[in-house]
Amino acid sequence: MSVNTFGRVLRFTTWGESHGPAIGAVVDGCPPLLALSEADIQPFLDARRPGTSKFTTQRREPDAVKILSGVFEGKTTGTPISLMIENVDQRSKDYSEVARAYRPGHADYAYNAKYGIRDYRGGGRSSARETASRVAAGAVARLAIPEVAILAYVSAIGGDAVDPANFDANEIGNNPFFCPDAAAAARWERLVDEARLAGSSLGAVVECVATGVPAGWGAPLYGKLDADLASAMMGINAVKGVEIGDGFEAARLRGEQNADPMRPGENGPTFEANHAGGIAGGISTGQPVVVRVAFKPTSSILIPQDTITRDGEAAEIVTKGRHDPCVGIRGTPVVEAMMAFVLADHKLLHRAQCG
Amino acid sequence: MSVNTFGRVLRFTTWGESHGPAIGAVVDGCPPLLALSEADIQPFLDARRPGTSKFTTQRREPDAVKILSGVFEGKTTGTPISLMIENVDQRSKDYSEVARAYRPGHADYAYNAKYGIRDYRGGGRSSARETASRVAAGAVARLAIPEVAILAYVSAIGGDAVDPANFDANEIGNNPFFCPDAAAAARWERLVDEARLAGSSLGAVVECVATGVPAGWGAPLYGKLDADLASAMMGINAVKGVEIGDGFEAARLRGEQNADPMRPGENGPTFEANHAGGIAGGISTGQPVVVRVAFKPTSSILIPQDTITRDGEAAEIVTKGRHDPCVGIRGTPVVEAMMAFVLADHKLLHRAQCG
Amino acid sequence: MSVNTFGRVLRFTTWGESHGPAIGAVVDGCPPLLALSEADIQPFLDARRPGTSKFTTQRREPDAVKILSGVFEGKTTGTPISLMIENVDQRSKDYSEVARAYRPGHADYAYNAKYGIRDYRGGGRSSARETASRVAAGAVARLAIPEVAILAYVSAIGGDAVDPANFDANEIGNNPFFCPDAAAAARWERLVDEARLAGSSLGAVVECVATGVPAGWGAPLYGKLDADLASAMMGINAVKGVEIGDGFEAARLRGEQNADPMRPGENGPTFEANHAGGIAGGISTGQPVVVRVAFKPTSSILIPQDTITRDGEAAEIVTKGRHDPCVGIRGTPVVEAMMAFVLADHKLLHRAQCG
Amino acid sequence: MSVNTFGRVLRFTTWGESHGPAIGAVVDGCPPLLALSEADIQPFLDARRPGTSKFTTQRREPDAVKILSGVFEGKTTGTPISLMIENVDQRSKDYSEVARAYRPGHADYAYNAKYGIRDYRGGGRSSARETASRVAAGAVARLAIPEVAILAYVSAIGGDAVDPANFDANEIGNNPFFCPDAAAAARWERLVDEARLAGSSLGAVVECVATGVPAGWGAPLYGKLDADLASAMMGINAVKGVEIGDGFEAARLRGEQNADPMRPGENGPTFEANHAGGIAGGISTGQPVVVRVAFKPTSSILIPQDTITRDGEAAEIVTKGRHDPCVGIRGTPVVEAMMAFVLADHKLLHRAQCG
Repeated sequence: MSVNTFGRVLRFTTWGESHGPAIGAVVDGCPPLLALSEADIQPFLDARRPGTSKFTTQRREPDAVKILSGVFEGKTTGTPISLMIENVDQRSKDYSEVARAYRPGHADYAYNAKYGIRDYRGGGRSSARETASRVAAGAVARLAIPEVAILAYVSAIGGDAVDPANFDANEIGNNPFFCPDAAAAARWERLVDEARLAGSSLGAVVECVATGVPAGWGAPLYGKLDADLASAMMGINAVKGVEIGDGFEAARLRGEQNADPMRPGENGPTFEANHAGGIAGGISTGQPVVVRVAFKPTSSILIPQDTITRDGEAAEIVTKGRHDPCVGIRGTPVVEAMMAFVLADHKLLHRAQCG
Repeated sequence: MSVNTFGRVLRFTTWGESHGPAIGAVVDGCPPLLALSEADIQPFLDARRPGTSKFTTQRREPDAVKILSGVFEGKTTGTPISLMIENVDQRSKDYSEVARAYRPGHADYAYNAKYGIRDYRGGGRSSARETASRVAAGAVARLAIPEVAILAYVSAIGGDAVDPANFDANEIGNNPFFCPDAAAAARWERLVDEARLAGSSLGAVVECVATGVPAGWGAPLYGKLDADLASAMMGINAVKGVEIGDGFEAARLRGEQNADPMRPGENGPTFEANHAGGIAGGISTGQPVVVRVAFKPTSSILIPQDTITRDGEAAEIVTKGRHDPCVGIRGTPVVEAMMAFVLADHKLLHRAQCG
Repeated sequence: MSVNTFGRVLRFTTWGESHGPAIGAVVDGCPPLLALSEADIQPFLDARRPGTSKFTTQRREPDAVKILSGVFEGKTTGTPISLMIENVDQRSKDYSEVARAYRPGHADYAYNAKYGIRDYRGGGRSSARETASRVAAGAVARLAIPEVAILAYVSAIGGDAVDPANFDANEIGNNPFFCPDAAAAARWERLVDEARLAGSSLGAVVECVATGVPAGWGAPLYGKLDADLASAMMGINAVKGVEIGDGFEAARLRGEQNADPMRPGENGPTFEANHAGGIAGGISTGQPVVVRVAFKPTSSILIPQDTITRDGEAAEIVTKGRHDPCVGIRGTPVVEAMMAFVLADHKLLHRAQCG
Repeated sequence: MSVNTFGRVLRFTTWGESHGPAIGAVVDGCPPLLALSEADIQPFLDARRPGTSKFTTQRREPDAVKILSGVFEGKTTGTPISLMIENVDQRSKDYSEVARAYRPGHADYAYNAKYGIRDYRGGGRSSARETASRVAAGAVARLAIPEVAILAYVSAIGGDAVDPANFDANEIGNNPFFCPDAAAAARWERLVDEARLAGSSLGAVVECVATGVPAGWGAPLYGKLDADLASAMMGINAVKGVEIGDGFEAARLRGEQNADPMRPGENGPTFEANHAGGIAGGISTGQPVVVRVAFKPTSSILIPQDTITRDGEAAEIVTKGRHDPCVGIRGTPVVEAMMAFVLADHKLLHRAQCG
């Protein structure tokens, strides 16, 4: 029930604000004897790291992770793994405007309404910077599910979608958009740059597929695999929608169109389709687990907007300085991390109950 | 972390199978001194009850709820409220076929893969019948949030959507589809009947709006109001997608289109739009909370499908007897119930931390 | 973290009041494929059942348990097991006095201070009657730990202790006190009868030993096996003290006296003593797990006591009718049940993390 | 349910090993707007700090706490408070012996049996050093319960108890034993020094009293205030017994001796005794909450003991270097911290349910 903790038997707790000295995660319940060092985590943080292209925020953070506990002689010990990432580029800028007025679309007003106080520097706790902690925790979780391969990519930006016929997993690392379609990546370069120069921002859709998940993970009825994935993904900053398998498209289909018929296979059943996205009744079926996530356009834009001050006066506000023209891009490694964590947690939970 | 328990400080635990003697829910953490009797719960169960029109399954269940504990002299006492609904119409039919082979799209195979056993009678624990327990629990939760009004309705069936211009809340109770648009209801009558007669089924979209939610509910970062709603909704049988506010549409927008500018109002701020669906940073903003839920078409159809038997042999299966041509319709009261429960839980959690 | 739920991955939730229609427990997370019927539970309820001798309360309850869910064709299915026990002997007596004034030592005043309301009939939720639900849940838990044998007995009543030299496990079932020392049982017969006739009551100490627990169960640092046992035992009605191994006596010893030296054995290490009660660092060592529990004398006595009314006026109160001269006796099966549940829960939790 | 997390709505998660770079705690769910700086925490850490007299271990640690998150402009923000304490005096000694063989009474063997690996340097995660994190978390919790005063003291060492007639709260800070009886403190000086010089150790009893707790805190039936205190205290390193109020002594009493009669008072009821230790039915009564905790003698003694090696061979082991002749002494601030945390958590939980 900890509100800054995610997970059931494998769990992480995150802490830290955008402009505090550091952020971090404590991973608890990790199986012992897994080989773990900073080098197992760093590549995932590097993928999420800001400032790597002109299409993401220009904040420069090395995002170097330190393991402070839970590892001995290169192996996990079963005790909590404390991960810390120091904040380096907390630019000493003037925060008086954001301290004074709420940025529409941001959590500013909501945090103030809830807590009566907010750390307004760089968004404080509500900053997307916190997702680095999730990525670090997800990297640990991956070690517990070596049988699973997880791949996320951006499937649309600003309504411009990839062409499934062009899908090439190898392409994903070749462009700054995690885009599996070279033609789309070329289009997005212009699209995102235009938005960036206009001081605007674009929404995006991220798709994530996990293969190798055996049948049987997920804990109905209120620990369903899809429900936990929905919670995991909707909790990522800027996410407004989550689909499993065909998602909303399934609501347009007839029963016979949406079926996933089964046939005998050499190693258990095979399926003739995967409308369900690998989950039935909240339990994995052995098919690839497919999740789709909608990111809204960043709220921090350089275009002035109507707002009010903390004192309730009308005002106009405009984000100054660094801005992220499409936050969904850097959301891709975060989606992967949350997928990894949910799956690892359910692997452990499944063997708790079912041996 | 109980897998058959939902909620944080207000919680319910459900139990029961489709064809066992009864189903039920235990509601824990309910504030004391709320007036509660069966009559406060029954209307919501009646709205969800099967067999009320030809557009839903013909199983006939009175769904009469009994309160077994937690109420004294007509008031809640703060102790667990045990709610029980007896199963009456467990038709003594022949289950040999469904015992032998898996129904594609159903949880049959997944349950077997997980537990090595399944109660195949009427779907057992994975039956939509269990959602009656959620509706009962949601009715109790409503008593804890008298300031909030919750309204759900079907906004599309089989891809045929209501016209927002025709929206009339009073219309919702006038048709068997929870449809707020009389014209759409008329079209759906033909559409659903056609599917029913063809032995097929249709997907649906349910929309739910909660008004009166004050700013400040929700517990970031891993107890965000939207994340908990996503978990609550994705966990409902047959649901494959969840959106908050503009949802996937937001991913097509630019930042300035998606903003919800603020203006000073007489009682706190007013907002010039509600793309966010009433939630920012995981915390309610005081605007209506808007959730949209995609239900797949029922998997139980009268059209034969390829499948395998428990022994792994190829087979063909067809659902016999009662079938539900559009399970999303009866999902509407379930969506309302889960919305009520999440909001009540967060009201209590908010006052735990913030007084 | 539900307050009427106990356990981590194996959990039970109880509900019900002393004079409501029924009480019950929902056991969640139970491994599938365990053979379970009412006959596996009933003997434990019978051992706890009131009215079996003149040394316990004269309330007559058959305490017949019904399984309402979670079992199919004689086996657990992995879904929640709902257990219900109907209340039969809710004597229709006059409760006006206990409604008016608080019984010292009872929970009457505290419940009223907390909730502003209390079901005063027979103690409502705070009645020891609820422990029947724990016993039923514990009986299910035993099925998950066939490798463990659990034995509890009363080791002292009113300060009169058994002589360890006389310990005979077979004697426990031969007297109405769960006493392992025939000579002590004979003394207690007079002692308890005297207290009963005087309208007074006596405290007791219950000791519980679990053998067959392998090394490795327990989840430090805040899910330690001893901490969970302490919570489990202290939560039983009338319990005021819990010891593991030597307990308070250990505080009188020197380090060399309290050591449990180890020697090589045929199947892992052997220990030359068991001061620790089978737990070190919150983890089982493979030695017998030993817990000792202090029950206070029943507060309901026939001797008038000073108290106040709900309106704050001075008053005198005396318990009328049935009374339990030594509640610790019937606490013995409850202690066993909680031991079983904690161990089963930790067995599952251990295999979640450590495979 | 995180195993390294304690608490319900106010929670802390600890991490860190004795000889890692640092230890720490993340406090989650803390009310916002409480004034908090390192100076509010440091005095409690200083009280627990080792090396302050010859009667405790000679490890020298400044135990300087750093607040890494959750505080802005001197006030809590409602977000997680990350507290870190660097390990300074991890003496680079030779650990080959403790790596090779298990120390009897220590958690060495149990950790190995559970995890298959252990960080043997200074006890790793099972070191009492971790209790510094609890003390830091407890210091934060105190801010949430300004109405409560908490006082713990050592009431016996090695079986030599204080004389209640000599009790003087002001004396507690005047001696190195947290002893409220000057005469006992003088005796203990010789007693503990003798044990220290003999390379032995002594057990102790710590008593803790919380005054100002209003009636109504505690959440029956499985979140009872006494059950949570029992879990909190039994989970402290070296604790083997917990009593509430009269504890085991209550088991020797008759009902009329154990009663706490009530009388009308100016501000609610007064009680003529406090055998119950301020808790009835798991709920506070408004009387002082009294807990007594038994600490075993430290297992690390300079007297050789029989043991086995990791390979199962017979061996003899003796603790070298620093040793703590009476770990119960430094347990006193830890007991206070856990009392504070449990009470603060229940204050928040109570207002969640009861407003």
